[in-house]
Amino acid sequence: MPRITPTVEQLPATIPFVGPEAAERKRGRNFLARIGANESVFGPSPNAKEAMRRAAEDVWMYGDPENHDLKHAISEHLGVGFENVVVGEGIDGLLGYLVRMIVQPGTRVVTSHGAYPTFNFHVNGHGGELVMVPYRDDHEDPDGLIGAAAQCGAALIYLANPDNPMGTWHPASTLRNMIECVPDGSLLVLDEAYVECMPAGHSLPFDTSDPKVIRMRTFSKAHGMAGARVGYAIGHKDLISSFDKIRNHFGMCRVSQAGALAALSDRDHLLATVRRIGEARQRIAEIAVSCGLKPVPSGANFVAVDCGRDGRFANRVMNSLIGRGIFVRKPVVPPQDRCIRISAGTEQDLRLLAEELPSAIESARG
Amino acid sequence: MPRITPTVEQLPATIPFVGPEAAERKRGRNFLARIGANESVFGPSPNAKEAMRRAAEDVWMYGDPENHDLKHAISEHLGVGFENVVVGEGIDGLLGYLVRMIVQPGTRVVTSHGAYPTFNFHVNGHGGELVMVPYRDDHEDPDGLIGAAAQCGAALIYLANPDNPMGTWHPASTLRNMIECVPDGSLLVLDEAYVECMPAGHSLPFDTSDPKVIRMRTFSKAHGMAGARVGYAIGHKDLISSFDKIRNHFGMCRVSQAGALAALSDRDHLLATVRRIGEARQRIAEIAVSCGLKPVPSGANFVAVDCGRDGRFANRVMNSLIGRGIFVRKPVVPPQDRCIRISAGTEQDLRLLAEELPSAIESARG
Repeated sequence: MPRITPTVEQLPATIPFVGPEAAERKRGRNFLARIGANESVFGPSPNAKEAMRRAAEDVWMYGDPENHDLKHAISEHLGVGFENVVVGEGIDGLLGYLVRMIVQPGTRVVTSHGAYPTFNFHVNGHGGELVMVPYRDDHEDPDGLIGAAAQCGAALIYLANPDNPMGTWHPASTLRNMIECVPDGSLLVLDEAYVECMPAGHSLPFDTSDPKVIRMRTFSKAHGMAGARVGYAIGHKDLISSFDKIRNHFGMCRVSQAGALAALSDRDHLLATVRRIGEARQRIAEIAVSCGLKPVPSGANFVAVDCGRDGRFANRVMNSLIGRGIFVRKPVVPPQDRCIRISAGTEQDLRLLAEELPSAIESARG
Repeated sequence: MPRITPTVEQLPATIPFVGPEAAERKRGRNFLARIGANESVFGPSPNAKEAMRRAAEDVWMYGDPENHDLKHAISEHLGVGFENVVVGEGIDGLLGYLVRMIVQPGTRVVTSHGAYPTFNFHVNGHGGELVMVPYRDDHEDPDGLIGAAAQCGAALIYLANPDNPMGTWHPASTLRNMIECVPDGSLLVLDEAYVECMPAGHSLPFDTSDPKVIRMRTFSKAHGMAGARVGYAIGHKDLISSFDKIRNHFGMCRVSQAGALAALSDRDHLLATVRRIGEARQRIAEIAVSCGLKPVPSGANFVAVDCGRDGRFANRVMNSLIGRGIFVRKPVVPPQDRCIRISAGTEQDLRLLAEELPSAIESARG
């Protein structure tokens, strides 16, 4: 057999998470409500769809490897320099590049216990050592993360704000304090996949002169383009330019580039989507309360719902919903594992949830 | 600054090649003929375009991380097992994963001097040591590659068949002999990006029981979907399953998955495209001969044209064509650098080439 490197050889063949399609194949039929992957059922801007349909005509051409037009639009949109932006194949792809740049066997990396598994997948994939900090009251714990990083000499600190899977968030002032305390030699990876869904005024201004923070955003969530795989990172120009050393330069889909560019300029659609996400969160919370469950306040496009007992019980509730054609997911690490995680759905999705949740709970109890 | 690994720190910030869009931005206007990136001007199947337009509606959903339907169709199409196929973000993406699995600092890798630069980019990116074997009569040299691999203990041997940038190819019998001689501990990477363009009957049958070969194919060339980023690799199931340890599971664009699936089933479009590629190669050869240049026989979707002098002269011819709005590229390593590389174009593209090439040569001489 070929000589696989020791780092890769020892990796498990498991994957971060199974997609809903695999569950559908197993069930033999499609889900009635797809509200488990934190996608946006409200879809992308009509302009983005039109741009993608048009770009399908031009798909014989490679996309621009420099992502020039999209980077330019993002930098204008955020008020940061062109040289402070890198575009990649979703935040997942960008996290992979970042981890590859910084993590080698034995490199220590701090994250929250139960936070985004794909980040851990990348760290493990490069032989890094994950140091896990517990959540605190269902929030990621900035002080705990900084303390752990200082103690273990972490090269990377991961924080998602808002958090996935709990949906909780920290205000800009807390993040500002955290950033000031990032130890020398550490880099804070601020995953802002859900930032557009957060209550207004909580987002941190950009300071691209700070080499200790890199922020990541995406078109997968509020922009409704998960299937297009477009993410971007904002940071110090020296760090951002390092991505060019290793990224897959011709890796971006041309259709996705065109869609993202059109999506970015449709501010009205984004605001309407954010409003609908807020309404859906409210509706999910009401449904949960009506069933005697407790929604965790969320600044993301989903709600973690505390099922009131242990992880095994919440797992039964989740599986019960899945059996009823409603795709949801759940946190896996205690004590967050007492929750199920429900993404913002259409009115029809949530009507179905309201109908089926009581009997799913009943069945989980039985 | 963040702690970049020594392997990445030492990498140059250069990129494998600059895209035509960058040249267009520099020129301030678009090219009149885009026949430099070995794309297919003949475009994808109308069915693939329609599938992509439809998929744009569903882009709010992540693509299936298992690429189930596409893998199934590919395995049926090639007559290999489902477990022998991995789908990825173009051959570039798959080469990146493969190199990451096998190459660590100091690992030796054999390729031809002047062959595909993106493969070298990945090997350098993981700290590998490239051992370069000269071309022989404008062909990659299987005996030379095997000899070098045996001598240096290479973990990987790269061969593109047909070759890029020269377009030459080896028949199945030569490849079969080569495969038999792959040294223990080496893996042959057979890049078949252009295989559909090769004269019929020259392709090697599949033997997925052989752990010493992995073959890579793409929808970017004859299928006309370069912008979609869909490639696949065929090999021994143990090697193929290893990709799951490190690949970006949610990395595939949903629109591209749908397009590739539709493209695969439109055999008529593929055959028509291959015929048009053959006609375009013939026309390029005629144009070259009429200008006193010498076309290299090609089994790919482009023709390397020997400009009859040294690399600097060929470079002037290329730049002269670019200045006239015709985007072409060229090999960079002697003696292949005496050529320019012209991709199959539409009738209009090649009419323009026929019109402009004489004066481009004149100008290069002057």
